[in-house]
Amino acid sequence: MSRLFKLEKTCPKTRARAGTLKTPHGSVPTPVFLPVGSQGTVKTLTPDELKSLGVSMVLANTYHLYLRPGVETISKLGGLHKFMAWDGPILTDSGGFQVFSLGHLRRISDEGVLFRSHLDGSEHFLTPELAIEIQKQLGADIIMVLDECPPYGENKESIRRAMERSHLWAERCKRSHKEKKQALFGIVHGGTFPDLRRKSAKFIASLDFPGYAIGGLSLGEPKELMHDMLNETVHLLPEGRPRYLMGVGSPEDLVECVAQGIDMFDSALPTRLGRNGAVFTRHRRYNIGNARFKQKQGPIDSDCDCYTCLTFSAAYLHHLFKAQELLAYRLATIHNVRFVMRLMEQIRCSILDGTFDDFKRAFIRDYHPTDEETRAEQKKRWLEARQGKHRSIDYDD
Amino acid sequence: MSRLFKLEKTCPKTRARAGTLKTPHGSVPTPVFLPVGSQGTVKTLTPDELKSLGVSMVLANTYHLYLRPGVETISKLGGLHKFMAWDGPILTDSGGFQVFSLGHLRRISDEGVLFRSHLDGSEHFLTPELAIEIQKQLGADIIMVLDECPPYGENKESIRRAMERSHLWAERCKRSHKEKKQALFGIVHGGTFPDLRRKSAKFIASLDFPGYAIGGLSLGEPKELMHDMLNETVHLLPEGRPRYLMGVGSPEDLVECVAQGIDMFDSALPTRLGRNGAVFTRHRRYNIGNARFKQKQGPIDSDCDCYTCLTFSAAYLHHLFKAQELLAYRLATIHNVRFVMRLMEQIRCSILDGTFDDFKRAFIRDYHPTDEETRAEQKKRWLEARQGKHRSIDYDD
Repeated sequence: MSRLFKLEKTCPKTRARAGTLKTPHGSVPTPVFLPVGSQGTVKTLTPDELKSLGVSMVLANTYHLYLRPGVETISKLGGLHKFMAWDGPILTDSGGFQVFSLGHLRRISDEGVLFRSHLDGSEHFLTPELAIEIQKQLGADIIMVLDECPPYGENKESIRRAMERSHLWAERCKRSHKEKKQALFGIVHGGTFPDLRRKSAKFIASLDFPGYAIGGLSLGEPKELMHDMLNETVHLLPEGRPRYLMGVGSPEDLVECVAQGIDMFDSALPTRLGRNGAVFTRHRRYNIGNARFKQKQGPIDSDCDCYTCLTFSAAYLHHLFKAQELLAYRLATIHNVRFVMRLMEQIRCSILDGTFDDFKRAFIRDYHPTDEETRAEQKKRWLEARQGKHRSIDYDD
Repeated sequence: MSRLFKLEKTCPKTRARAGTLKTPHGSVPTPVFLPVGSQGTVKTLTPDELKSLGVSMVLANTYHLYLRPGVETISKLGGLHKFMAWDGPILTDSGGFQVFSLGHLRRISDEGVLFRSHLDGSEHFLTPELAIEIQKQLGADIIMVLDECPPYGENKESIRRAMERSHLWAERCKRSHKEKKQALFGIVHGGTFPDLRRKSAKFIASLDFPGYAIGGLSLGEPKELMHDMLNETVHLLPEGRPRYLMGVGSPEDLVECVAQGIDMFDSALPTRLGRNGAVFTRHRRYNIGNARFKQKQGPIDSDCDCYTCLTFSAAYLHHLFKAQELLAYRLATIHNVRFVMRLMEQIRCSILDGTFDDFKRAFIRDYHPTDEETRAEQKKRWLEARQGKHRSIDYDD
């Protein structure tokens, strides 16, 4: 068992686990969800609010911070924690995901990836070693290896080549990683191909990282396929190390994937949905712009203990969204983040007291996930927003 | 002396006064500045934050709330205080200013004004009686008479006709006003013509309102002209009643106009400037987007006790503005509102301890107002934003 992670309890009926991450900036009970603070801010929220919502750890995007304000600036200002005034643990990604999905790709080789900034067109060459150096300067508690991130739907040969390059880069990242205060996680790839997933899990596990991420999922593939891939992968990762599923954040996926043995999640989904007026309840998510809320006196979610629900009517939130008031985005973000945090607290408690399987059944019985079609449509809109006009309200990773 | 207002102290060297407004939702020490919550929200801030910034009273715009979500909705939800979850005093304007500057004017007669909504083009006929009825349903503590608001630069004959119509409407508002819990203020007009201002002040004062507003100023006229008009007007208003200068909110104007005997102010300026990256300090205002702040370690204002200044570096705020992060607008709003609230607290304390004149001299010595050219340019941009694409970030009254 690594010093980073202490496994406390395993569910007798599922693979769910409860544990604690010990980082230089404090302990994090797991399973844990990390809200996304792409540019050094979880959109609309202050660090104080994050704490009050029960957030224990956040993710920041190396790609964004590297391009703006620049790593040198953040380093001069005392590192990322001080810069964003967040004294809890931070995880940074390697920049890979954004380079491949947001940057304008110029050339990729085993050496590294040449890309153009989506902000000003400037050219940058990102290598595994540079990814580690940047993350060292940012100073996060957990950092990630550089990986190649092909989109969902590529053919098997492309996915295999990308996986092999990611393996090569993982080794180089590990070799160049000297800052022992930072825990470096490996990332398993292999797309939606079971044999590649197994191969990648075994290889990455063999490199002996203090924690393991599962990448290349939640990219638009059917949910069943994602669960199949977890099924192929998770049991090949060492029991005593934390397992981090990147980019997953819908309530039903969190519950299901905890049951698969995942300890950590991040996703911009709850915050992005909030800014677009979609709010979670334990039954389903609602669009607050819907006319049914125009005169609704009660809160958006009568089960919720967040500031938004304790203070404002659904009608008021509806009004703020109709009027495109900035407070709308903030109040909905508060609600969705709190919803997910409370869900994670419930999950953890139920694992600790041995009732997670019951909790999961009840949750799945009561919660009606958004249908695939709506989800696909949202994903498309989000990807278009990322590619086109980068409005802060629309995108965030 | 009216029950609404208690005059506590008068400056021996200027006309500055300190007093207290007693409203059904609590007492308000004066001189007071009211942040603008046009659509039932002071943009980006929660009611809790407003309180913590020292805000004791806010303004909301009847025109906006009448069009959306509608007075009936707000009334059904328990009135404006409950709707926006603000339990302190509220002042609503009559809707006149927005009808004349933002709505698409169709026809005006002594009877009332026919206008088209800037939102959906629907036609509405606003009369003095309707303005009172709407404000009654909203339930503010202080409400305003309907007035005709011609732009600065109209010829004297137009200004005179508008003034006379406003006088007629003031009488009708007073007659139709039955809700004694709400204090109805009269409004003095007369543009920038001293004889009209004197005539209007005398006439409106003769109607015996519990408070008096001075309208039709701060519309782009030179500052000296505004001060001349106050000089002509204020002494004609009854000593024991509060005096409210509408639409004024720059630090230098607040200090100067308190010295002229004004007790109440409202303006969207501090919040709007904040959202555009202009932050106040006691020396001048700065544009946080300026490159000088890119690596500035300290707060934007080392004299400030606001959350933004206590928590974040100027460099971080600079970054948030460059990245168009939503938190940027909020943090700058917090700072500017707190700056103005602290200024008003300092003004009041110095009146109470007899040192206002010294305070005023020192403030004016140290503070360098934005030059007329920059200000005119900002005003132009703001008016264009109002006329064109109504982005929430750009405009707010």
